[in-house]
Amino acid sequence: MPTDSLQLNVFPEVLGIRLATVCAQIKSWQRDDLLLIDIIQGAAVSALFTQNTFCAAPVTLARKHLRCGEVRALLINAGNANAATGMRGLADTQATCNAVAQVLGINAEQVMPFSTGVIGEYLPLMQMLDAIPRAAAQLASKHWPQAARAIMTTDTIAKIASRNLEIKGTACTIAGIAKGSGMIRPNMATMLAFVATDAAISQPLLDKLMNEAVAVSFNRISVDGDCSTNDACVLIASGAMGAVIEDEQSIEYQQLKAKLLEIYIELAKGIVSDGEGASKLVTIQVNNATSSEEAFKVAYKVGESPLVKTALYASDPNWGRLIMAIGNSGIDNLKIDKVAVYLDDIPVVKAGERADSYSEEMGLRVFKQEAFTITVDLNRGDSCEHIWSCDLSHEYVTINAEYRS
Amino acid sequence: MPTDSLQLNVFPEVLGIRLATVCAQIKSWQRDDLLLIDIIQGAAVSALFTQNTFCAAPVTLARKHLRCGEVRALLINAGNANAATGMRGLADTQATCNAVAQVLGINAEQVMPFSTGVIGEYLPLMQMLDAIPRAAAQLASKHWPQAARAIMTTDTIAKIASRNLEIKGTACTIAGIAKGSGMIRPNMATMLAFVATDAAISQPLLDKLMNEAVAVSFNRISVDGDCSTNDACVLIASGAMGAVIEDEQSIEYQQLKAKLLEIYIELAKGIVSDGEGASKLVTIQVNNATSSEEAFKVAYKVGESPLVKTALYASDPNWGRLIMAIGNSGIDNLKIDKVAVYLDDIPVVKAGERADSYSEEMGLRVFKQEAFTITVDLNRGDSCEHIWSCDLSHEYVTINAEYRS
Repeated sequence: MPTDSLQLNVFPEVLGIRLATVCAQIKSWQRDDLLLIDIIQGAAVSALFTQNTFCAAPVTLARKHLRCGEVRALLINAGNANAATGMRGLADTQATCNAVAQVLGINAEQVMPFSTGVIGEYLPLMQMLDAIPRAAAQLASKHWPQAARAIMTTDTIAKIASRNLEIKGTACTIAGIAKGSGMIRPNMATMLAFVATDAAISQPLLDKLMNEAVAVSFNRISVDGDCSTNDACVLIASGAMGAVIEDEQSIEYQQLKAKLLEIYIELAKGIVSDGEGASKLVTIQVNNATSSEEAFKVAYKVGESPLVKTALYASDPNWGRLIMAIGNSGIDNLKIDKVAVYLDDIPVVKAGERADSYSEEMGLRVFKQEAFTITVDLNRGDSCEHIWSCDLSHEYVTINAEYRS
Repeated sequence: MPTDSLQLNVFPEVLGIRLATVCAQIKSWQRDDLLLIDIIQGAAVSALFTQNTFCAAPVTLARKHLRCGEVRALLINAGNANAATGMRGLADTQATCNAVAQVLGINAEQVMPFSTGVIGEYLPLMQMLDAIPRAAAQLASKHWPQAARAIMTTDTIAKIASRNLEIKGTACTIAGIAKGSGMIRPNMATMLAFVATDAAISQPLLDKLMNEAVAVSFNRISVDGDCSTNDACVLIASGAMGAVIEDEQSIEYQQLKAKLLEIYIELAKGIVSDGEGASKLVTIQVNNATSSEEAFKVAYKVGESPLVKTALYASDPNWGRLIMAIGNSGIDNLKIDKVAVYLDDIPVVKAGERADSYSEEMGLRVFKQEAFTITVDLNRGDSCEHIWSCDLSHEYVTINAEYRS
């Protein structure tokens, strides 16, 4: 029975979705690094991809295959991004799609490939071709936890989430996995995330749901402001349970959307919390901006400033750096004497300078938490937006300085 | 006699400019942290300031006093930025200007104040007022090296440069000092830099020279992409030597400009080399862009990517991250198969993938140097621009995590 528990032995299954992981030794690690996802015939599949101009070979092919029509399988490898690999990279990816197609008895155009890892190296194709049949032999609905682990690169924690819901009396499930954890500044799409439900929903509504869910989750997170060549997010509705949801106004759509958003946000926050070297999850909330765009501009400038991020790391409530970052956000005619800043609920800046009531000890108490909110009130409009960011630590430098060694 | 040597005992003097440094104990350090510069009557003074919306109190006042007409003194303190300090910050700065005016027998409007250091704390006004007369008593033309040291904050090396030149048979001097070394992403202006010459030049030409010099020096550097609330750059022509240069086409103007640009570039590169925790000075050269703006966009995206910067730190020629950053620069219709990348003269990426001739060893040899050039050829236009950047190290995190402790 599906349940909400994240315990590995009781993680819910999504009817119509089977998964398998194997070790293809893409790097010199001893763990599963190849994930095959088999999708029941007739499912609806939606996907969003990186906006990086130099997208990887698998992204190019996945986009193309998505347009071809009925997607039946996803192949994901960790450890190698197959990016900046030119024609050979494309041919390699095509070869893996062919292999999946052959073993599952479908067309190569029905396979979407995904890769994550080092850029600029060719795929270990022979190993992958060898691994694919082994994976196909192990496909099962229960393998979500293994799948979450197989797609990890520098992630330290597997990101996995699920929700149950009842649609017109039928018990449905949503399950999702994601991986981060550097090169994270999604832009319309995200790192790798695969979410599936056995509810039935029309393709146009699924696409809409995907866009809405990404807008409030993966499109609001930043670890280092870099955006990968390989980011992708896939949403599958297998349709194995119940009647097709076709009406956006229906209670069923709203129920599904609510639960789906929860999963997306849980995975997105999981990615930031487990950002490379991150020790803190910080929500940057910008209130009363003149537009949503302006609010995001300020939020990202604060959330991505190396000086703010090192202060977060040090648990040093150096609010001067917040003011510096806000002032740098490129907002026209921003008046410092209108700006207020809060650490959680504590006013730290009022009218552009230190609030009378503020003491360093109060700031310290907030900054020492593992999760807290920095609120910037621009006091000049009625748009409010938030993003999630993390700190910049010694570990970030270590991880990225030693990434290829 | 003025000489080009940087040895402290023989650093050149600029006629008409006197300097003095004293310890005002602005932080709990035992070193001079207050600099007073006295400028001869009739000098031309040009200045550029930070574009941060939340500029500090001294910036507001310095701007105003510059507009008032004849600047006769500069007062600079390190250790406290007097930023985000509201009306009290302005009053404090005004009080220091008043004190300088009184002791030098000039008007307060003739004093330009500058501050650098922690944001959000009030100036230790009494200590500064006490220090100003002590400084005035020590004014002398020989104090450039002391001045360079007094304005340092997290800088580890004093930035100072000088050049001699002969204008119509008269020996002239240019001397300059600057300080970095975090929060460095100048935008039309820069950190703190003070450059002076005893050559005579008209105010309009000096302003023009200032803009040209900053455009090829301080406006091309980035340490962490953050832009301070206090950045300022001042250029003084005391006019003590020779006739006024008024003609932009004259050989004298060209001579002065050439030497001045050398000083600006030397100081700018000095700031990046001594960027917080920096161990490498990297020139990012972007060639054959469709516009200067496009070239800068790519250059800054590469030069400011945390993933590129940690790879620089690790001496890891992870060229995939260069590709990732180029792809993220937001350039329309950029074709990966047109892009070439060089590490110094070594082709690493051709047509968007690894150059056949490239080997990891070649890249390692380049990356292990203290200074080298990453060239990105976009092959789609004829605009070329460069910037200077540095690596992101453990030391950067340490310095900024411990800044206020």
